[in-house]
Parts: sequence; C-alpha cells; structure tokens
Amino acid sequence: MMLFGLEEATVAELAAGVRPQEAPRGGMAPGDAGEVFARAAWTCIAEPGDGTAGALVDRLGAGPALAAVLEPGAPGRLAPQLGDTGEPDGFGDELEHALQRWRPRLSSGEVIRCLQQAARVGARLALPGDEVWPGGVDDLGRNAPLALWWRGVAPALVSLPNSIALVGARAATGYGEHIAMEASAGLVDRGFTIVSGAAYGIDGMAHRAALASSGLTVAFLAGGVDRFYPSGHDALLGRIVADGAVVSELPCGAAPTKWRFLQRNRLIAASSAATIVLEAGWRSGSLNTAGHAAALGRPLGAVPGPVTSPTSAGCHRLIREYDAVCVTSAAEMAELVGDRVVQVPLDFPGDGAGGGDRDGTPGQGQRTSDQIRVFDALSGRSPRTVHDVARRAGLSVAAVQGALGALDLEGAARERETGWVRASR
Amino acid sequence: MMLFGLEEATVAELAAGVRPQEAPRGGMAPGDAGEVFARAAWTCIAEPGDGTAGALVDRLGAGPALAAVLEPGAPGRLAPQLGDTGEPDGFGDELEHALQRWRPRLSSGEVIRCLQQAARVGARLALPGDEVWPGGVDDLGRNAPLALWWRGVAPALVSLPNSIALVGARAATGYGEHIAMEASAGLVDRGFTIVSGAAYGIDGMAHRAALASSGLTVAFLAGGVDRFYPSGHDALLGRIVADGAVVSELPCGAAPTKWRFLQRNRLIAASSAATIVLEAGWRSGSLNTAGHAAALGRPLGAVPGPVTSPTSAGCHRLIREYDAVCVTSAAEMAELVGDRVVQVPLDFPGDGAGGGDRDGTPGQGQRTSDQIRVFDALSGRSPRTVHDVARRAGLSVAAVQGALGALDLEGAARERETGWVRASR
Repeated sequence: MMLFGLEEATVAELAAGVRPQEAPRGGMAPGDAGEVFARAAWTCIAEPGDGTAGALVDRLGAGPALAAVLEPGAPGRLAPQLGDTGEPDGFGDELEHALQRWRPRLSSGEVIRCLQQAARVGARLALPGDEVWPGGVDDLGRNAPLALWWRGVAPALVSLPNSIALVGARAATGYGEHIAMEASAGLVDRGFTIVSGAAYGIDGMAHRAALASSGLTVAFLAGGVDRFYPSGHDALLGRIVADGAVVSELPCGAAPTKWRFLQRNRLIAASSAATIVLEAGWRSGSLNTAGHAAALGRPLGAVPGPVTSPTSAGCHRLIREYDAVCVTSAAEMAELVGDRVVQVPLDFPGDGAGGGDRDGTPGQGQRTSDQIRVFDALSGRSPRTVHDVARRAGLSVAAVQGALGALDLEGAARERETGWVRASR
Repeated sequence: MMLFGLEEATVAELAAGVRPQEAPRGGMAPGDAGEVFARAAWTCIAEPGDGTAGALVDRLGAGPALAAVLEPGAPGRLAPQLGDTGEPDGFGDELEHALQRWRPRLSSGEVIRCLQQAARVGARLALPGDEVWPGGVDDLGRNAPLALWWRGVAPALVSLPNSIALVGARAATGYGEHIAMEASAGLVDRGFTIVSGAAYGIDGMAHRAALASSGLTVAFLAGGVDRFYPSGHDALLGRIVADGAVVSELPCGAAPTKWRFLQRNRLIAASSAATIVLEAGWRSGSLNTAGHAAALGRPLGAVPGPVTSPTSAGCHRLIREYDAVCVTSAAEMAELVGDRVVQVPLDFPGDGAGGGDRDGTPGQGQRTSDQIRVFDALSGRSPRTVHDVARRAGLSVAAVQGALGALDLEGAARERETGWVRASR
C-alpha cells in the first residue's frame, strides 16, 4: 500500500529508526514498516482520545484507514463497509466530520519530520500488542491511543501492570511532598512501579523518590517526548529516561496543551493498577485523573490532610463524594490493588481542569472539549486564521468557527484584522 | 409502699429536694416521691448499663422492683410473674446473679446521703418521660439509664435531640484544638447544642467554644455531678452548669472509673443526633463513643488530619474501616444529621478503651467487663476484701472471685494478707 506516494524503502527506513529492536539488521518487513508508518501518521493527524480515529483504525487497520482518508470521497465509499446505515448521526456522518478535522493535518512532510526527530532523540514507537505496550490503556476502548512514543528502558513499560499512579497538586505543600516521598519509596519497596505526570510538586517528588529508591518510574507527558515539560524538570526527565521511561501519544515536536494534559491523565489512570491522589485543591487537575481511574473501575485512593489546608480539600472531596479510599500509608495504598472496584461516578470534578473556583468565580469549567482545544490553539500575541487554528486544534473549520463564537462571547478570544487571538483568560 | 422502712414524709422531703420544679409548695404527691426515691436508689445500687436492673424496673416499676429485691426469696417469687420458665440461663438465673451484686449495696443510708448531697449542690433527678429527659437514651433499651442526675439549665437538656457530640483525644494537638473550636462555634451558629465529656483536650475545647459562642452545651460525666472531673476543669464545668448542663447517671459522691467512662460514652452517643470524632489516636477512648454511635445507628463523622499525626490515626481508621463520614467543616457535620444511618459494625475498636497498643503491647484490651470493673475497684495501696470489692464494683462475690483470678494471672492484681491490691497495670 502506497501512503502519501512514498517509496517502500523510504517508509522502511523511517520505521526502522523508531523500531531498532524490531530490525536488528537488514531492515524491517514491508508490512510491519507500513503499520509503523501509518500509526506514526495517525499520532500526527488525530488529537489524543479521538474516538472516530480509534474506531476507524480498529475496523480497517491503521494503514488502510490512513489510505482511505487520503482519498477523496472516502466516507461515502467506506460507510457501508463500516456498517453505517446512512441514518443521520451514524458513523458516516461522524466520519465526514472527522475528515474535516484530519484533512488540514494530512501532510507526509510532517510525519517524516516527526519520525526523523524521534530517531534522532532515541524515541521509539510502541504499537498495541508489543511487549512494552501497556495493556491497561486498551480498556479505553475507541479512545485508546493508536500508538505510544517513548524513551527509556523497556522493563519500566513492561512493569506497568504492576504500577501505582501517584498524582497531585503542582503547588504542593511541604506535607504533600513528604507524603509523596514516603508513598513512592514505600511502594517501590513493595515492588511497584511509580507512574506520574512529571509536573512540579507531587508528581516530581513521586518520580524522584522512586529513582532514589532504585525503583522503576514512568512519566506520561502531554507533549512530544523530545521536548521535556516543564523545562525545569529537564534533568529529572533525563534521569527518568535513563532508568525508567517517558511516554506520550503525541509525536515529537508536539507542544503540550490543556486538552492534551486532560487526555494524558487518562493514560496515567488507565496504564496503572491504582491511582492515588496525594494532595489536590478543590478543583485540581488531579481530580480529572482520579475521575478517569474511577470511570475505568481502577481502585482510587486519596490521602487525607489537615482540613485547614486548601491543598488537601480535593482529597477530602474524593473521599466524601466519590468513594475514594482513605489511604494513610504505602501499605494501605498497596492494599488497594486488586482489592476493590470503585463505582463510576457521574459528573466528576475537574474535567474542565483548572476551571471555575470553589467560590464561584466564573472560569473555564463549562467549556466544551472543542472550546478547550480551540483556546489551546490560540496565541495571545499572533493572530491566527480559522484554518490555522483548525489544523493546530485538530478540528474541522466548522467546529472551530462554532467554538470561536462561544469563546468570543465568553471574552476569551478576540478577532483581529488578520485572525483570532486569545484574550485575557 | 415502704422502702427501707422509711416514713412517707421522709421520702417525700428527700424527693422534693431533687425535684424542686415538681413541688413548688406543699410537697410532692406520695406516689411521685416514691418513684423518685426508688429511681435514686437504683442509681446507687446498679452500675451504669446494668441490663438486669433495666429489665426488672421496666417490668415491675422502679419502686416495686426495689421493694422486691429488698425481700428475701425474691427471685423464686418474682421469676414466674416475670415470665421465666425456670430454664437455666433464664431471667430467674439472671436475677439471682444480679441480687448477689446489688445486695452488698442495698443501704438506705447511702441513698439518703446521695439525695441530701444532691439537694445541697442543686442537682436534680431527671426521670424517663420528663421534659428534660433526653429521649435518645431510650434507644439503649434495657441498658438505658434508670434516672439521670443533672445540674444546669433545663433548655440545655430539652435541646438534646438537636445536638451533636464532639469528642476526641485528651492529648489533642494544636490542630485538634483549632478544629474543635471551629466545629463547635460553627455548629452553635447553626443552632446545634454541643455534647461532650468535659475531658481535657478536644472535649474541653468543644465546650469552651460553645460557651464563647453563647451556645448551649451539655457535659456527660462518669462520676457524680457534685464532684467535677477532671479537677482542672472545675471552672469550665462551673460555667457549663451556669449556662448549659452537666449530667451523670451516677449519684452524688460517686467516683469515675474506667467502666463508668465507657458507659458514660454510650450516653454521649445516644443522647445526641450525631457523633463527630475530631482527633483520636489508634486506640483512643473516643473510638468507643464512635462505636456506640454506630451501634445505635446514629450518624458518625470523623475529621481527617495529617497522616503523619498519630492523633489523627483513629479518625482515619474510622473512615477507612468503620464507614465514618469524612467531615471537614461545621457545614459538613451539620449535614450528617438526619442524613444517613451508619451500619452497625462488629468488633468495634476501643471497647476495652486504653487497651493494648497499636504495636501489640499486651494491654487491657481483652478484659471482660467484670474484670474492668473489679480492676477499677482495687486500690494500688490499700488491700481490699473480696466483699468490699464486690460492693464497690457492683458485682457479686462470685463474679469478683472469678475476675480476680483472671487479673491475678494477668499480673494486674495481687492478694495480700488482708485483701487484694492492684498490681502495676
């Protein structure tokens, strides 16, 4: 199958660069290389958690799915073989909308650049079914990642079924950092791998204590694995690459956005055996991770703290309202695994992470996912055209226009002569 | 009915001294006075929570029950009319055992002294059905108090159905005292009466903050209401008498014992609409109060704290293991009332309050109730005869002999030439 009109040899060489272990000498089998290239392309085209991409790849395979969307008239031709009955809001309609958001990003140059950059920094591409593939993410169904970019040592990924996610506030207190350190070291002593998001505060302390205890640790990022975020954690992420693993479903070069942080959280929850929130404000983004864990039926724990500390308010909220288990030691956290299934909560807090405050300050809490992604794609300084925003956000032009209208009303976006800019919020 | 051969006029005068509101002038009706005298006598004869006394008084009435036990041969005569079928372990057997523990305490002088002392300090006797009677204690069934001694203002007692018990460690931290103060003041603001046990630490702070907020507060004591315990809280208890109420089921002159503290805890839990534990060690006596609340189906809350603080370990234990609601503010505590029924837990911690430590130090945790009461009745210095111990403990001689044997084996009691003394524990 020809993708973007590229030679098979070119595709094979690009694929081998990110699958060195699959092609010790003499290159990679043509079919495998095509699959690697197609999955890499999908990570460039679809935003994380794009369920239409997931469903299409699931039904046709990554390569044929990509080939199909490269051809004009694909939806009409594909719909019947995808079981679409032609009804409004059926898969045909869904696919038509999806093509409008994928097409602005269909660029062979972009895919080639991301594969070359990955090979340059030693990043590899994990595919579903690989030994290093974290099987837990398959529970995400059609929202599962299509492939994962990673850097580090394979045993760290292989150990993920026996991992615990330790997450919490960036603005952690001394108390929070202390309990993160104790929890991480204590869980490493019990043989667990520590999963977190490499953020400042609780996340960083969890990774650091795991490394200090000679344990395995895995950091899930919201941008490419070639550009560490936050930059203040460059050295820490370098050490995680050396002794653990850094993982992302975004291709090299991709910047983290709010939408990608929210989607990254689902990977943290899905890839680990249990999630523990150590310190979190009333609307902390950690509650979003907790919500994913609960929705997946993963055990969820929260560490209590002083009721006088706002950074423990989110933990107490999880215990009170969302049936999280109150955990006070590494031993109690370890007990959670395989012990209990948390009910799926409705209306979980923090899904609009960082949104409205406890005291009712109007915030971003009510934004739709399209609005979050469009806001992410705007700049505060450089006006961007609707088409540019569509490509950056991975949305159709129509969807972007709708979202911009809402953001404009909210006062969060403004139209200038040459395009749209982000307003104060 | 003649009790102890006393003149009716004597009984009426004694009764009027502790029921001034019932006898504004001209004295009390003879039947009422007999009931008051008989109930007062029962508080002298039976230890708190004596279920046999409760059942007997319930079936015969307080006066006839007292008259019956004053006569020889009572069990044989009473058993048939009490529905006993003569089987072993029936009510006849139970009554026979009870008489053996009551008889050493049957003394008209003792009852007269306690009524005179009560009148002297302005203590009154509340009877079941009185306006000031806390109806919640009736849920204790045959273990309900037969009468309650109290000092203070009637509205405090009348408000008990709308009260919340705030209990916790004597060795409270600054954090614990702060949250006790906030909780008490916040609940007073919401119209609740504050119930507690007048101990140092959390209890004292709860009472103090209620008084400072011009709220009503009720202290349940484990000894007579004429002798404040702890003595360091003399001034505080004086203020509670002035603006709230101090209550006990023990007669004036009675000293607090471990058994009486445990039984006092059941009154705190039963008389209030919900119980909140604010700070408590892993085996704090407050967990015993919490256990009573849960057993009675009363809502139970616990305030979390730093997991690094041993004085919050008991609270976290209640949340983790006993389904207590995690409460972080007065508003959340108020929400508990009428909101939820806590399941009756089996094997609740702290019933042997103060017993074995978390790390397995052998302690008093496994003592039977007889052993607790006998140990309470021993002195470390003065040897006491078995009969003296029986009277003090409110137990039969046979029961005391059995308990002393067990305490001897445990190393907690030693026999000297002139009687038994308490050993090191």
